[in-house]
Amino acid sequence: MSFDFSAFLKSDLPPAAQRWSAFPEYNFVGGHNHADGVPAADLATAAQQVLSREGSTLATYWLESGPQGYRPLREFVAAKLKSRASLACSADEILITSGSLQALDLVNALLIEAGDTVIVEAATYGGALTRLRKLGAKYLGVDLDQDGMRPDALAAVLEDLAAKGQKPKFIYTIPTVQNPTGTVMSQDRRQALLDLARQHAVPVFEDDCYADLLWQGERPPAIRALDDGGQVIYCGSFSKSIAPALRVGYVVADWPVLSRLLALKTDGGSGALEQMVLAEYSASRFDDHVAALQQTLRDKCQTMMAALEEHFGATAEFEAPSGGIFIWITLPEGVDTGKLAQAALAEGVALNPGAEWMADAEAGRNRLRLCFANPSKETIQKGVARLAEICHRETGIPVRSANVSRDA
Amino acid sequence: MSFDFSAFLKSDLPPAAQRWSAFPEYNFVGGHNHADGVPAADLATAAQQVLSREGSTLATYWLESGPQGYRPLREFVAAKLKSRASLACSADEILITSGSLQALDLVNALLIEAGDTVIVEAATYGGALTRLRKLGAKYLGVDLDQDGMRPDALAAVLEDLAAKGQKPKFIYTIPTVQNPTGTVMSQDRRQALLDLARQHAVPVFEDDCYADLLWQGERPPAIRALDDGGQVIYCGSFSKSIAPALRVGYVVADWPVLSRLLALKTDGGSGALEQMVLAEYSASRFDDHVAALQQTLRDKCQTMMAALEEHFGATAEFEAPSGGIFIWITLPEGVDTGKLAQAALAEGVALNPGAEWMADAEAGRNRLRLCFANPSKETIQKGVARLAEICHRETGIPVRSANVSRDA
Repeated sequence: MSFDFSAFLKSDLPPAAQRWSAFPEYNFVGGHNHADGVPAADLATAAQQVLSREGSTLATYWLESGPQGYRPLREFVAAKLKSRASLACSADEILITSGSLQALDLVNALLIEAGDTVIVEAATYGGALTRLRKLGAKYLGVDLDQDGMRPDALAAVLEDLAAKGQKPKFIYTIPTVQNPTGTVMSQDRRQALLDLARQHAVPVFEDDCYADLLWQGERPPAIRALDDGGQVIYCGSFSKSIAPALRVGYVVADWPVLSRLLALKTDGGSGALEQMVLAEYSASRFDDHVAALQQTLRDKCQTMMAALEEHFGATAEFEAPSGGIFIWITLPEGVDTGKLAQAALAEGVALNPGAEWMADAEAGRNRLRLCFANPSKETIQKGVARLAEICHRETGIPVRSANVSRDA
Repeated sequence: MSFDFSAFLKSDLPPAAQRWSAFPEYNFVGGHNHADGVPAADLATAAQQVLSREGSTLATYWLESGPQGYRPLREFVAAKLKSRASLACSADEILITSGSLQALDLVNALLIEAGDTVIVEAATYGGALTRLRKLGAKYLGVDLDQDGMRPDALAAVLEDLAAKGQKPKFIYTIPTVQNPTGTVMSQDRRQALLDLARQHAVPVFEDDCYADLLWQGERPPAIRALDDGGQVIYCGSFSKSIAPALRVGYVVADWPVLSRLLALKTDGGSGALEQMVLAEYSASRFDDHVAALQQTLRDKCQTMMAALEEHFGATAEFEAPSGGIFIWITLPEGVDTGKLAQAALAEGVALNPGAEWMADAEAGRNRLRLCFANPSKETIQKGVARLAEICHRETGIPVRSANVSRDA
C-alpha cells in the first residue's frame, strides 16, 4: 500500500508535473535554439583544453575562483559586456548563475515580499510573471511601442503609485530584443527610464538575456551602463547565444547588492564544467559564433514571417523582430489563443498563448508568441500551415488563407 | 552617489557575503575532495565522445530527456543504486538535481512550513540544519551510536510528539557514512527506523550522499530499498564520488512525490554538459574510480588519525570513520570549538565547529569536524600540528602533545 503524502505537503504548491514524453512535432515554444548551430566540436576541444590544464580544480567547490563563479568566465563576460553593451564592469561585480532564471530567483529573493508591487512591460517574459505571482507580488504593466517601454506611461504608473503612497520594488525591463515583442528600447528611452527611476528612487532590473541575438540596428548601451549609482541590477545569459541546456547566466550589480545575492545563492556554486568550457570556448569563438547564429535565426525568422503571411494573411498582425527567436502576433479580437494552444498541442503544434505573456492577461487573450529558432525552415512552414488550419477550424479565422477562401 | 537598496530589501535576509580571497592553507572544512583523484583526462574523453554524438541536443532545454534529467545518467544512477545500495528503481523514479543541496531544497519546499518539526540525527549535516532554521522549522535530534540512530531514542521522540498531538514532517537521516560521525546504520536499525516511521506514519528522507565512499564493512541496503510503500524519499550525489564542483545529485521517489518535486524545480533543468559527461564517463569507469578513491581517502584518514593521536593524544576523542572524508572529534568539556575555529582560521586552519553540526548546538560546543580529503598528507600533518598549538594556546589543551608536556 502506498504511503499518502497529501497530509504532509506544504500548502499553495503548484500542480504536480505531468510525465514528459517528447517534444511536440512543431515546437514553437520556449527558448530552444538552432540545433545545428551548437558548436559541439569546439566545445569538446575547449573541454579537452581546460580539463587537461585545470581539471583537478573540480575537486573543490567553486574551483579556485570563489562562490561568484569561475573567474575566467567572469572576465570574459566583463569583456563581452564592455564591447557589446558599452557596460564597463569588473569580474568582481559579476555573479555567475545557473541560467538567468536563477538570476531572477535571486533578485526576487532579495527584494520581493508578498504584497509588493513590481513594474513590468505590458508584454513581458511569462516566467517572470509566474515567479512574481508565486511570491504574492502584484505587477503593473507599462505600455510598449516599437521603441520599448513608453516613458509617459511609465511616469503615469510611477506617479499613480506615489499618489497612493506605494513604492514599487523595482522596474523589470527587457530592453534589448524585448520578450515577446522583439523590439529594442532606444537610447533616449533608456535614459528617460533611468531618469524616472532616479526621480522616484526605484531600482531597475534589466534583463538582457536575448541581447546578443540583436541582428538589426545599432545596439544602445545597457541601461546599467548609463547609471553610475548602482541603481540598476543587470542580468544576461549564454542560453540564447550558445545553448540553453548549459544553464549559465550572470548578474552584474554593485557589491552591496551582489554580496546579498551571493548570500542567497546556497547551491554550492553553479556547474563548473559548463563554466570552464564556456570560458575556454568563448574567449576565441564567441563573436564569430554569434554572428553566424544571428544570420541563421534571421533566415528562420524570415521563413516564419513568410509562412504567417501566406497562411494567415492580414489576420495575423506582427512586426518584424530586431533579433531573437520569437514573433509576437496579434489575432483578431475574440480569438482565444489559450483555447487555440490546447487544440493545437493536441495536433503537435506548441505555442505560447499571449495571456501568459502579458501583465494584463485579458489584453493578451488574442495574442500569441511563436518561436522559430529550433524547428527547421520546412518544419516552420508546415507548422504554421497546420496552425492556420487548426485556428480556422476552431475560430473561423483566418477566413482566407494562401489567397484561397477556406469557406469557399 | 550610490543608490541605497536598504529600504527595498526583504526582511530576514542572511548576512551579506564577504569577499572571497582564497582557500585557507589548511582547508579541513567542506566537501572538497582529493584533487589528484579527479579523472580529468577521462572526463575530457567522455566530453569528446558525448558531444560528437549528441552535442546538438544542447540546443533544447532538457536535451531530449525531459525535465527529470539526462536519461542515460538516470539509467546509470538506477544501475548503480541496484548494485551498490540494493535499491531497485527505474530511470522514471529519478530526478537529477544540481547537487544534493538542490534535493534538500526541493524536499523542504515540498514539505516544510514555518513551525513544522523535523526529526534529525543528534549530529547531522550543518547545511540541512541551516536550511530548516531559515524556513522556520524546528528540529529534534535523536541520539546516535556506532550503529547509527538509536531506535529506542527515535521511538521516544516520536511518542513524545504523538503525546503532544504533533506530527513531524519527516525523519532526516544520513545512514551510510553518517555526516559527521562516519558511521553506518546497521540493517537491523534501518528496518527498525522504517518500522517506527510506518507505525507513526511519518515520511523518511534518506540522504546517501557519502555512501559511495564506504570503505569498511558491508553496505546494508538503502532504507528506501526496504520500503515498498514510497514512504522514503532518497537522495544521493556525484559530488563525493567524482567531484563537488560538478553539482550533480539525484532524488529517488515515487511519482506522486517526484511529480511534485519536479513542479518545484523551475530552473530550466540542471547543467546538461555535466550530466552528459558524467553519464558517459560513469558507465565504464565509475566503479574503478571509486575503488581507487576509497583507498586514497582511507590513507589520508589514517594520516589524520595518526596526526591527531600524535598532537592531541587522549584529549581528542574520535572513532575511525567507516568511509567518507571527515573525522568527528570530541575535545574535553569546556573547550569552545567555535572560538577555536575563529582563532585557527586567522592562522590558516579551517575547521567545522561542532555546534553547527548538532541539533543541540550546546552539545556540539566541544566537538569539531575535520575533513581530510582535499589536503595532502603532509598538509594534514602540518595542519593538525598547528591546530594543536593554537588549541593549546587558546584553551590550555592539549596539555601534552607528542609525549612532551607543553607546560614543561
